[in-house]
Amino acid sequence: MNYLFDFYQSLLTSKQKSYMSLYYLDDLSLGEIAEEYEVSRQAVYDNIKRTEAMLEQYEEKLLLLKKFQERKEIYEKLRACVAYAENSDEAVALIEALEKSD
Amino acid sequence: MNYLFDFYQSLLTSKQKSYMSLYYLDDLSLGEIAEEYEVSRQAVYDNIKRTEAMLEQYEEKLLLLKKFQERKEIYEKLRACVAYAENSDEAVALIEALEKSD
Repeated sequence: MNYLFDFYQSLLTSKQKSYMSLYYLDDLSLGEIAEEYEVSRQAVYDNIKRTEAMLEQYEEKLLLLKKFQERKEIYEKLRACVAYAENSDEAVALIEALEKSD
Repeated sequence: MNYLFDFYQSLLTSKQKSYMSLYYLDDLSLGEIAEEYEVSRQAVYDNIKRTEAMLEQYEEKLLLLKKFQERKEIYEKLRACVAYAENSDEAVALIEALEKSD
């Protein structure tokens, strides 16, 4: 869920982002989030469950996480492949640039 | 717009997809699409304009096209970089695999 949040958080509302971030990244409990936002624990729970479903639907449609994981393996193979090339440093820098823009 | 459609069409409804595909890929006129779907030319126009705005919003948020274009340049540099490496064929095959999963 952390990965999905990473890939698709820009498509969420700011409230959805806050709840998800507090719950998954900062490890707050539903009760603590509810207290902070002065809403019921159930409201927080429902919002997070709906957001999780949304993130999964985005992944089903766009497959960004799946493709990223596929490419991660290829980066490793490519890194091994260029390790002993004459301009290996340049190649490795380019592979890193690819990974960063992923 | 063709590129944006390519990247984000999975997020559109089937009607949005049909209109966009007929208009942009098959090069039909608004009038021809209207006739085929038995709706007004204005309805087709409005739907397409709304869809275009949606695609642009998705791109603003996810930047898939922008990142793809950045990576395309890096692929070219990487290809040049490994051209004379001993296992150049293997490296090129891996770069192609990356491009395909993009």
